[in-house]
Amino acid sequence: MSTKQISPSGDRGAGLHVVKVGGNIIEKEEDLQAFLDAFSALPEPKILVHGGGKLATQLAERLEIPVQMINGRRITDAETVEVITMVYGGKVNKSIVAGLQARDCNAIGFSGADGNTILSVKRPVKEVDFGFVGDVVGVNAKLIHELTQIGITPVFCAITHDGKGQLLNTNADTIACELAIGLSEYYEVTLNYCFEKAGVLLDIQDENSVVKEIDTKKYADLLKDGIIADGMLPKLENCFYALKGGVHKVQLGKPEMLGKKDVNHTTLTL
Amino acid sequence: MSTKQISPSGDRGAGLHVVKVGGNIIEKEEDLQAFLDAFSALPEPKILVHGGGKLATQLAERLEIPVQMINGRRITDAETVEVITMVYGGKVNKSIVAGLQARDCNAIGFSGADGNTILSVKRPVKEVDFGFVGDVVGVNAKLIHELTQIGITPVFCAITHDGKGQLLNTNADTIACELAIGLSEYYEVTLNYCFEKAGVLLDIQDENSVVKEIDTKKYADLLKDGIIADGMLPKLENCFYALKGGVHKVQLGKPEMLGKKDVNHTTLTL
Repeated sequence: MSTKQISPSGDRGAGLHVVKVGGNIIEKEEDLQAFLDAFSALPEPKILVHGGGKLATQLAERLEIPVQMINGRRITDAETVEVITMVYGGKVNKSIVAGLQARDCNAIGFSGADGNTILSVKRPVKEVDFGFVGDVVGVNAKLIHELTQIGITPVFCAITHDGKGQLLNTNADTIACELAIGLSEYYEVTLNYCFEKAGVLLDIQDENSVVKEIDTKKYADLLKDGIIADGMLPKLENCFYALKGGVHKVQLGKPEMLGKKDVNHTTLTL
Repeated sequence: MSTKQISPSGDRGAGLHVVKVGGNIIEKEEDLQAFLDAFSALPEPKILVHGGGKLATQLAERLEIPVQMINGRRITDAETVEVITMVYGGKVNKSIVAGLQARDCNAIGFSGADGNTILSVKRPVKEVDFGFVGDVVGVNAKLIHELTQIGITPVFCAITHDGKGQLLNTNADTIACELAIGLSEYYEVTLNYCFEKAGVLLDIQDENSVVKEIDTKKYADLLKDGIIADGMLPKLENCFYALKGGVHKVQLGKPEMLGKKDVNHTTLTL
């Protein structure tokens, strides 16, 4: 049985794609398969990050475990962390890994506990007690780099650990961002957020109103004009945090944009 | 953040432990923690294999998915393969990985899809249609060897894949056996089956009646005398299959035997 290998280059400056895929895409079987086609066609090295929030909510409801969200964030008690571990780490992650293997992409699934790749601290209780939710404090970029150098494509679910045996629910956008920053020590990293829109839209109703390029100045203008609001606000904050942390560029759009210059999307640079 | 490293030796003949831990141990929190203490104290390189059948049955019952067993094997329809992926690949695997990380053992969780490590074929339908159950046809020992050489401890759940995107329920004893045979190309492998008994017992009621050593001749005698029966029969068949496949020795007993010569257990050699 052979494993697809890439020739180890060790070059700093070689390209790496970090791709975050949104929940609305992975939760529909047809969209997931189309996404996996696009992702597997990207050249290696590459890393995938996924969530699966709605599927976790569905399982929690079937098990009659109360679902409580505050500002779009899940309150994660002991039963809930078990549910998300089953859904994100089991069902979703292993399906994606098997789907990538079928496309000749040598994927290995990870939580942040696996290989001690992402260490977090349990979020301190302030106004809200989010429970077993983690804030990332460290990424083991050295190990992830080694794995990508032997042809492995890591697939991360939205779970980290505290190093003391506790798994922690962690935002997938944040995980993608922290991985992209960590890997920038070894690669020229492009961070891709794939979701159901074609990018940042001037008019949310018009898929043709994509803002193709946003730099720091343009970002300030868009904020001033109130173009960026709601869910897009924390996403773009994440993007600029990544760029300031050393990530080469960030792309936002539909999965069809991956590796294609002629498909509409938004590119962010400093 | 640092990763514990071992110096790559590359020696054929260096020792490797493959440890299969039984369901009765991992399903009790206290026993699981004691097992993880014993396992993490073993020197590297090492590999862990676990099942989790009773926990899968519990989840299936909560979800009102019918559980059907024939000769101790689970009939695995599409809903059931999802349940075992959530329980084995998610809940159990990630808890063990996090528990090992807390003990400074750099574990990564695997199904056979991850890294294309264990390829299976769906079991052909004869008298019984077992559904999505896999018979192992290949082990990617080269990749597993590479990972153990950079200090990784792989933790396998009882799931494999067919290389075409389908996950398959696979007996954990068999997985441990096939991994041990595959890794024998690189290491002198000791295969350990940890369960709730102290080994092969002459008298099933007497924990002090452990048969300490069994070779091919002794095995034939024990079979003739009807000492080996029921669940122990396929287990010992697996053991001798492993030995004939190149595994150095096989040990059966309680987790306390791991790495200890003075704790009662059964050792099998050809």
